[in-house]
Amino acid sequence: MRGIRQLAEHLDISIGTVSRALNGKPDVNEETRRRVLAAAEELGYVANQSGRSLRQGETKVIGLMIESSQEAVENADNFFLGVTSGLQHVFARHKLDLLMLPCPSDEDPCEYLKRMVARRVVDAMIISNTQRIDRRIDLLSRARIPFAAVGRSLSAGNFPWIDLDFEGVAERAVERLAARGHRRIAITAPSSEVNLGYVFVESYRRALEKHGIPFNPSLVIRVKSSEQGGYQAAHELLLLEDRPTAVVLIYELMAIGLYRRMMESGIVPGRDLAVIGFRDAPRARFLQPSLSCFRMSLYDLGIALGEMLLANMPAYRELYPDCGRNIIWPLELVQGESDAFEIEAMV
Amino acid sequence: MRGIRQLAEHLDISIGTVSRALNGKPDVNEETRRRVLAAAEELGYVANQSGRSLRQGETKVIGLMIESSQEAVENADNFFLGVTSGLQHVFARHKLDLLMLPCPSDEDPCEYLKRMVARRVVDAMIISNTQRIDRRIDLLSRARIPFAAVGRSLSAGNFPWIDLDFEGVAERAVERLAARGHRRIAITAPSSEVNLGYVFVESYRRALEKHGIPFNPSLVIRVKSSEQGGYQAAHELLLLEDRPTAVVLIYELMAIGLYRRMMESGIVPGRDLAVIGFRDAPRARFLQPSLSCFRMSLYDLGIALGEMLLANMPAYRELYPDCGRNIIWPLELVQGESDAFEIEAMV
Repeated sequence: MRGIRQLAEHLDISIGTVSRALNGKPDVNEETRRRVLAAAEELGYVANQSGRSLRQGETKVIGLMIESSQEAVENADNFFLGVTSGLQHVFARHKLDLLMLPCPSDEDPCEYLKRMVARRVVDAMIISNTQRIDRRIDLLSRARIPFAAVGRSLSAGNFPWIDLDFEGVAERAVERLAARGHRRIAITAPSSEVNLGYVFVESYRRALEKHGIPFNPSLVIRVKSSEQGGYQAAHELLLLEDRPTAVVLIYELMAIGLYRRMMESGIVPGRDLAVIGFRDAPRARFLQPSLSCFRMSLYDLGIALGEMLLANMPAYRELYPDCGRNIIWPLELVQGESDAFEIEAMV
Repeated sequence: MRGIRQLAEHLDISIGTVSRALNGKPDVNEETRRRVLAAAEELGYVANQSGRSLRQGETKVIGLMIESSQEAVENADNFFLGVTSGLQHVFARHKLDLLMLPCPSDEDPCEYLKRMVARRVVDAMIISNTQRIDRRIDLLSRARIPFAAVGRSLSAGNFPWIDLDFEGVAERAVERLAARGHRRIAITAPSSEVNLGYVFVESYRRALEKHGIPFNPSLVIRVKSSEQGGYQAAHELLLLEDRPTAVVLIYELMAIGLYRRMMESGIVPGRDLAVIGFRDAPRARFLQPSLSCFRMSLYDLGIALGEMLLANMPAYRELYPDCGRNIIWPLELVQGESDAFEIEAMV
């Protein structure tokens, strides 16, 4: 890797002139500029951005912290790759780049974040997978690093976050099923401390109440958010004495494993068991019968998240005065065949 | 974000003493050290890593460039999340961190890489999705940035790479099908210029020759590497006048779309059409009939890739003297039901 000194020596020109040529300053003649740029290309000259950020106090890089846990790995959650395009669209307006920071599965997320912050690689952070109590939020607030979260948390005060409308999904799913006569409606929930699990189950409980259906804790099936988790959930549903007639899933890919396990027992989704999935996913689109689920644009979510973050960075705040600080992102119902039957028909 | 100056002012101690306390130097008394550390925690002091790297000439960060194209996004290729764990395991030995650099879909990968290199965020790079001609390889070689590639390329000379054994997969798939009497064996290939497509098709051609089967270009179906691509491939196979009796897929998730399209036409994989998939994937495990495919450990690949990279970094070279510079990564056949029939039975 060659620096400006090597370049100047090679060309036998002063460092000052080389620097002015590289930075497009007007007081360098065209011939010299051409020679400098050609040599820079030839020798593989690379500007020392690290020196620049030190002077300017910014790196022009935004970090997105993701988890590389076994669960995330096995299931290839495309959620963040989808959001990335929207984020990049927003950041490109200001020549900011997005880096993804994958937290190793055997490391405490807060310790990891502390180290990454100390590396001063990024100007601002986006964290995801927020836990019920999440020390990362306190850490970033204290260190005065601009940040935004994907997901809510009980931690800290009024920090900027965007979250999916888990309430709306639970509510509409229960309403739809109740209208078709279902009274024994099961739900899947994550087995971890992730905040969305609490939100989802609580909303489901309230929705049941609204329809006069008593809440039964044994119908909350806690499994991993994966295909395998869906398979496991189906297995547990089959073991229940008084089997539910409907199930609402919290994670898109669960439907794949659940369908398989049900089919193995001769139970057909949409005929013997009503299934409502969570987010519409490309691979769930190939399920038969087609899955009733909820649709949203990851790209648009990325745009909103990016703008919310910039609205919280001193350098860009004024450009984004109207950004919400807390956003509940809506999802739209996609009617499939997996819940297309009335419960009366079975009785 | 507070720096060392603010910390010193707050404590009314000299910057030098604060610095020595923070860096664990012995010439600071215990009481002062405790006060400094408590205040650092309280005020959210963060060491200026950017200043450090400038002096030490290294960032202790390794970059992994990935694509965030629509195709990658929609299909959530978990390949790199899987490899990440192995890489992190190796890098942790040397307190190196891994960042993922997602190249926006509308940006030229080489220009993107040039910019990221100029940012000096990383000490070394891993690139993936190598193209037949890949200017990134020349760029990194010229800039003398240590790197390793996932995938081969015709570009540059003897650069360090690791690649899947596409030859072996094509060869064993054709051999297996030929042994069961198949003569009309189709193959799917990517519609892009990615190098692996060329390797796969060429190996398939040679394998056919070995078994005395003439190569027929119309049996090479070029589609996107996705579920939808699999659906499209099935559609094109159904349109062929003399329909193939077998198909070999280049991408794991293609099987999901292909199964669906075949089922829609009443064609059952493993009975009417032999299907051999590529890499074993969690969601393909729920297909019925089960898919014959190939298994590998992404984690182990990550380990080998990480060690190969370190063997090419001056600071770590001596610790990894025996690392291969070019590695073809083997895959192991997993026998499923999707190709479990002999062609004679159909005639």
